[in-house]
Amino acid sequence: MRRTQVVDALNAQSPAAELKVCGWVRTRRDSKGFSFLELNDGSCLNNIQVIVDETVPTYPVIKDVNTGASVEILGELVESPGKGQKWEIRCTELKLLGVADAETFPLQKKRHSDEFLRTIAHLRPRTNKYGAAFRIRSEAAYAIHTFYRERGFFYVHTPILTGSDCEGAGEMFRVTTLPVEGAQKPESGDFFENDFFGRESNLTVSGQLEAELLAMGLGKVYTFGPTFRAENSNTPRHAAEFWMIEPEVAFADIHDDMDLGEEMTKYVVKHVMEHCADDLNLFASFVDKELMGRLETLVKEPFARVTYTEAIDILLAAKKDWEYPVTWGCDLQTEHERYLAEEHFRKPVIVRDYPKEIKAFYMRLNEDGKTVAAMDVLVPRIGELIGGSQREERLDVLESRIREMGQNTEDYWWYLDTRRFGTVPHAGFGMGFERLLMMLTGITNIRDVIPFPRTPNNIEF
Amino acid sequence: MRRTQVVDALNAQSPAAELKVCGWVRTRRDSKGFSFLELNDGSCLNNIQVIVDETVPTYPVIKDVNTGASVEILGELVESPGKGQKWEIRCTELKLLGVADAETFPLQKKRHSDEFLRTIAHLRPRTNKYGAAFRIRSEAAYAIHTFYRERGFFYVHTPILTGSDCEGAGEMFRVTTLPVEGAQKPESGDFFENDFFGRESNLTVSGQLEAELLAMGLGKVYTFGPTFRAENSNTPRHAAEFWMIEPEVAFADIHDDMDLGEEMTKYVVKHVMEHCADDLNLFASFVDKELMGRLETLVKEPFARVTYTEAIDILLAAKKDWEYPVTWGCDLQTEHERYLAEEHFRKPVIVRDYPKEIKAFYMRLNEDGKTVAAMDVLVPRIGELIGGSQREERLDVLESRIREMGQNTEDYWWYLDTRRFGTVPHAGFGMGFERLLMMLTGITNIRDVIPFPRTPNNIEF
Repeated sequence: MRRTQVVDALNAQSPAAELKVCGWVRTRRDSKGFSFLELNDGSCLNNIQVIVDETVPTYPVIKDVNTGASVEILGELVESPGKGQKWEIRCTELKLLGVADAETFPLQKKRHSDEFLRTIAHLRPRTNKYGAAFRIRSEAAYAIHTFYRERGFFYVHTPILTGSDCEGAGEMFRVTTLPVEGAQKPESGDFFENDFFGRESNLTVSGQLEAELLAMGLGKVYTFGPTFRAENSNTPRHAAEFWMIEPEVAFADIHDDMDLGEEMTKYVVKHVMEHCADDLNLFASFVDKELMGRLETLVKEPFARVTYTEAIDILLAAKKDWEYPVTWGCDLQTEHERYLAEEHFRKPVIVRDYPKEIKAFYMRLNEDGKTVAAMDVLVPRIGELIGGSQREERLDVLESRIREMGQNTEDYWWYLDTRRFGTVPHAGFGMGFERLLMMLTGITNIRDVIPFPRTPNNIEF
Repeated sequence: MRRTQVVDALNAQSPAAELKVCGWVRTRRDSKGFSFLELNDGSCLNNIQVIVDETVPTYPVIKDVNTGASVEILGELVESPGKGQKWEIRCTELKLLGVADAETFPLQKKRHSDEFLRTIAHLRPRTNKYGAAFRIRSEAAYAIHTFYRERGFFYVHTPILTGSDCEGAGEMFRVTTLPVEGAQKPESGDFFENDFFGRESNLTVSGQLEAELLAMGLGKVYTFGPTFRAENSNTPRHAAEFWMIEPEVAFADIHDDMDLGEEMTKYVVKHVMEHCADDLNLFASFVDKELMGRLETLVKEPFARVTYTEAIDILLAAKKDWEYPVTWGCDLQTEHERYLAEEHFRKPVIVRDYPKEIKAFYMRLNEDGKTVAAMDVLVPRIGELIGGSQREERLDVLESRIREMGQNTEDYWWYLDTRRFGTVPHAGFGMGFERLLMMLTGITNIRDVIPFPRTPNNIEF
């Protein structure tokens, strides 16, 4: 007999004379002559209640059916006389698949700290909180694919291994097959002559440049893949490996870009609110009481939109002791971003037209010669959720911007080719998937929205 | 005015008094007093025909509207009197966005070799063939997500950076922030003490072990992400970076696993046949005349299923000069796999129950003590498309298999914990996404289904 998922049993329209469910026991309560099991199979947050009475042939094994044990249950789906559940299962056959010793199984009923659970990341998908977080992660990813496909975008895989450094900055991981003891430097040529790719190779920090190449043929594309930063900082907001979504749109300007970012954020939040109500409710109840209010505001109200110059004026007028002083030309820090979204606008805000000095070479120079057509979406409690721009499509301007940044135009011959041949206005952005998930769940540490997070000195599992 | 995508203009239900289209000119033909443009914007294979006559104010620029140039067109969508197209656009305003010099733009009308196009991978998305390949890639990826979601699977992101070597084999890329000149060996401890993660770190060759951990909580999961092999071989079938889909299912055995692999393959092929008819037709017409027949057989007929032992008997009975001799116990080579699928069964075949010596430690030992519950899906022209197994869920058997393979059980403490606490029968497989795309398109070189392929000494773009 095929197993029925717990989510389907709980949502049944009618009783069933026989069904099979499998799962892990969350709790067992014994009464005289029978036991109640709360069974979870990961398909949803809720458990199904199973009643096993002493007439079940294998009833004697029930003493080993502890929290964490795995079982296979044959039984009848009947209306539950109990409160808080429509259906329960009257067990006719019980099979103990795997025990979980009460002395050594770490996930006993009591509540555990996030810090402790990170040390047993291999088991935390069996808890309510992390099960919910990873189901939301899955559904949010699906919403992203659906959003772009409905709008005529193509999903593209840009390379993870790269010989170039997109942002001209960022600490990158080197990828190599050379011995750790050190490469032998060839008499002519460089260290990397004998490396796998014959030159220095790194893990990508962004798929943007390659996404642009693809957008120049396919029109509208997006990436959704892992990205890496070798930043040696232990903060709740940084991981060495995280996922990014990077749309790139031909024939689009900075305003189209802002519209796309706002529309996408709203779409994903709305989708998750509709499809993960139970899981979201766990976070709204136990992690962040203001979560639902913030998400509802985000979906309903238009995002605020200001220029960088207006944002600086707002920050200067604020009566705040900034850790990083505010002047026109400074980069916005998280404290500034959060103030704008959280306290000033009390909703997401899009800041555009940043000083060119603090932004990357590929961002389109505005008429004023001082600012570039960059735009960041800032949201309460997170700060920057999206960073994007219209791209510089004018070959001569782009070349001089590359030189201004102290880089070589030769290294970007293929990128410049797209401006040389049939160049078009275009725009795009990057959204950190984990930031989106932190916004969606109220989880405050990035390590808790990634199944197996990678941070300095931490690569277990 | 918002731009209309060419695909939508071509599929219009009625004429339109005014619309805007943008794109790249594939060809221009001039007549007395007017010109025809074939315009493509990447949204589909087909171009839309645009008629620009001399009354258009900017008509004099038409001489610079060469193959490869980008334009913005305002005009009227009217029924086309010409053959082979329902609609065409009568241009009222023409804007030349970007020129493409006829002397230097490499993609002139003539046909180019695949080898040449790889050297300009940044421009090949603008060709019919690669545009089609990457649109199919996108749609196949979407079909995969839809398939699993409809069946209650959760999409999980397993780590790319790993401290472990899943298969206990395979050449891995090392990831490091140590200097290339060589790390200094600390007096105590090893070379990696000062590396980013404090120990040797590599790029993953498979997300399976972590997917198992997640399936042990969420029930049914799948990964879809990049995977790496530092194999120094230049073949049409190997790339250093490729994408894999790895489902993992709790409470499932080898037969469920075979069913899932067959069902998934059929679903994706059917979806692409339905949603990418024009793009597929290009490959059926110009790349592989037998493509559609093979895909139709794959969708319609049940896959053949044999044991490894039966497969060996078939191979021994075949009158073939094998490069690799066939004996019970040998690993199947591509020539054997292709013979079984292409010549013997003339359709996909699933081979199961391989000798334990040639398979990984985590595959479930069969009753005979000699074979493991492994299964490979072999398809015509490709060979292995899917490799999977039921996993060894018995702690004691798994531990002794790890030791038999000369590895340390301590390295797998977290993996073994899932067998220690609430272990369950489970199964999964890995499918190479690029192999699937080669099967779908008839493309014979893996470099031509990846936008920017990575192979030894090749990391351009």
